[in-house]
Amino acid sequence: MREPIAPFPPATAAPDTLAGFRAALSALPAADEAARATARAREARLTKPQGALGRLEDLARWYAGWQPGRPGAPRAARVVVFAGNHGVADRGVSAFPSAVTAQMVANFRAGGAAINQLARVAGAGLAVVPLAGLAATADFTARPALEEDALLTALRAGWEAVPEGCDLFIPAEMGIANTTAAAALCAALFGGGAEPWTGRGTGVDDAGLARKAEAIDAGLARHGAALHDPWEALRRLGGHEIAAMTGAILGARMARVPVLLDGFVASAAAAVLAVSVPGALDHAQAGHLSAEAAHGLLLAHLGLVPILDLGMRLGEGSGAAVALGVLRAALAAHAGMATFEEAGVSGC
Amino acid sequence: MREPIAPFPPATAAPDTLAGFRAALSALPAADEAARATARAREARLTKPQGALGRLEDLARWYAGWQPGRPGAPRAARVVVFAGNHGVADRGVSAFPSAVTAQMVANFRAGGAAINQLARVAGAGLAVVPLAGLAATADFTARPALEEDALLTALRAGWEAVPEGCDLFIPAEMGIANTTAAAALCAALFGGGAEPWTGRGTGVDDAGLARKAEAIDAGLARHGAALHDPWEALRRLGGHEIAAMTGAILGARMARVPVLLDGFVASAAAAVLAVSVPGALDHAQAGHLSAEAAHGLLLAHLGLVPILDLGMRLGEGSGAAVALGVLRAALAAHAGMATFEEAGVSGC
Repeated sequence: MREPIAPFPPATAAPDTLAGFRAALSALPAADEAARATARAREARLTKPQGALGRLEDLARWYAGWQPGRPGAPRAARVVVFAGNHGVADRGVSAFPSAVTAQMVANFRAGGAAINQLARVAGAGLAVVPLAGLAATADFTARPALEEDALLTALRAGWEAVPEGCDLFIPAEMGIANTTAAAALCAALFGGGAEPWTGRGTGVDDAGLARKAEAIDAGLARHGAALHDPWEALRRLGGHEIAAMTGAILGARMARVPVLLDGFVASAAAAVLAVSVPGALDHAQAGHLSAEAAHGLLLAHLGLVPILDLGMRLGEGSGAAVALGVLRAALAAHAGMATFEEAGVSGC
Repeated sequence: MREPIAPFPPATAAPDTLAGFRAALSALPAADEAARATARAREARLTKPQGALGRLEDLARWYAGWQPGRPGAPRAARVVVFAGNHGVADRGVSAFPSAVTAQMVANFRAGGAAINQLARVAGAGLAVVPLAGLAATADFTARPALEEDALLTALRAGWEAVPEGCDLFIPAEMGIANTTAAAALCAALFGGGAEPWTGRGTGVDDAGLARKAEAIDAGLARHGAALHDPWEALRRLGGHEIAAMTGAILGARMARVPVLLDGFVASAAAAVLAVSVPGALDHAQAGHLSAEAAHGLLLAHLGLVPILDLGMRLGEGSGAAVALGVLRAALAAHAGMATFEEAGVSGC
């Protein structure tokens, strides 16, 4: 047993090797179908017409399958913002300079960012994990973004950021130029070249958008067939914070912790698992549909239906944190409502 | 000054006559444009790319215009469930018997309904106002649903259900067969006959759906040209709880209290105001898109874009209560985030 990487005890210890991560992905725990059936049976007896709470009912059943012993609200929800920098930022693909990543880490720590407010409203704890001292990855148009040991370090940091006792996890990110890395990763995993995956991120102009697509296509050409392996695509095109989210989503699954995905970058990190093993994201829901253009396409590939569609495109876990409020509503209704018998209400 | 109708002091006293309600609608207060501009200016300086919080930014500006002195979360949000019965229920238009209305009022009071849980999660107070002792309206296929004094009583009860100091109001309803009344009202206000406005409500079967459309068309034929006046359409086709919501939405506006609309029936109550005076719903947002088929059409007529689309169709204020969580997130982000200067973050 290794020492924990994070300042709080992890739900489970991370594998020591990349082979260990691959092995975990081949041995995913399933949802508790009996708990899900119990939830479904209760749902049918609650004082409302069948199905009248719509998606809230789906969410309650989903959560029951992963946290069968915990009716009602999550008591230990956590958002972890993984922060990292990207060598490809030097190619002028973002509206903001790389220095903003460190500035925003300080802002998260001082409580001034959007996610600080949104996590508080949602009743979730918040932690910030800067990776690799915020040193940038290599520019993926020239060579792999991450060396193998850096990939492993990031995956392990993510996995062990899911704390013991956590009952809802939101993997989140901050990293200037990371929609470029995420778009390249999506193109590697799902095909289509840069075009369908390239969007404006934080608000890049037309010239920047063209540079972004060019960099992505250059990366795809540079790494070629090596990208057929999803983990290798993650290493070559991704980044520290993206790999950390991949590790966190897998670590959460091994501990049966339900996950709410945020926007395009978090969903790209999740996609590495989804393309490797069918059902790898059964413990995850898409918190929202980002305004980043390719997010809808990515969610369609993942078979996920977003809970919210609010035109948000901030990252930081912001959309998923708002969705956590919807999940809380769903679980409170499921746990707290009276049945037809209890309330003496006539069924139909 | 009359004695207040509700058990808590109302924000403003209700008019004593229907003419008084008509007069109020001709003298609506406007939003505070200076406060809105201040919110817009602050929004632009917060540590995020411009527009990156999407609808959350719109909601924060909207709220600032109506409650300029109250940054941050609503502190006195209230859901009021108005309950009423409908004579048209005798025509077999609902999947549930009329007795369920009283049973559900008891369930609301005992804390067992969905809205009890959802209001608690949303941090809103909840009150239940049964109207007319839950006596049914007249069957609108035969005569006006409400006498003039009953209409006035319901409007006043709604208006005065908006309490003093309230800073966010959700008008809500419970009433077996009230989607039939709401559909008839929409057909009167917007045209098209029964067909586009008739849906399954709590889950009526095909035969019930046919009876429902038939009753609505019969009501439209019975009342004819008298329906051209929106207040008269409300009286002839609506119901106690529907008129109470109309009164509440107008009373809220006079006190500059922002409103979140729930589903089809609440939106139909709001439509009476909207067709009378342009901008009458500027203080309201559509909390969600109901699964009741005609709600999307109604919102399009009202020019409202729903915050949520979760396939809910329960009424009781349930969808609006979930949307209140999104509004809280929006206001917390707006009030709590650091500016670029405060956080030392580089702008783009």
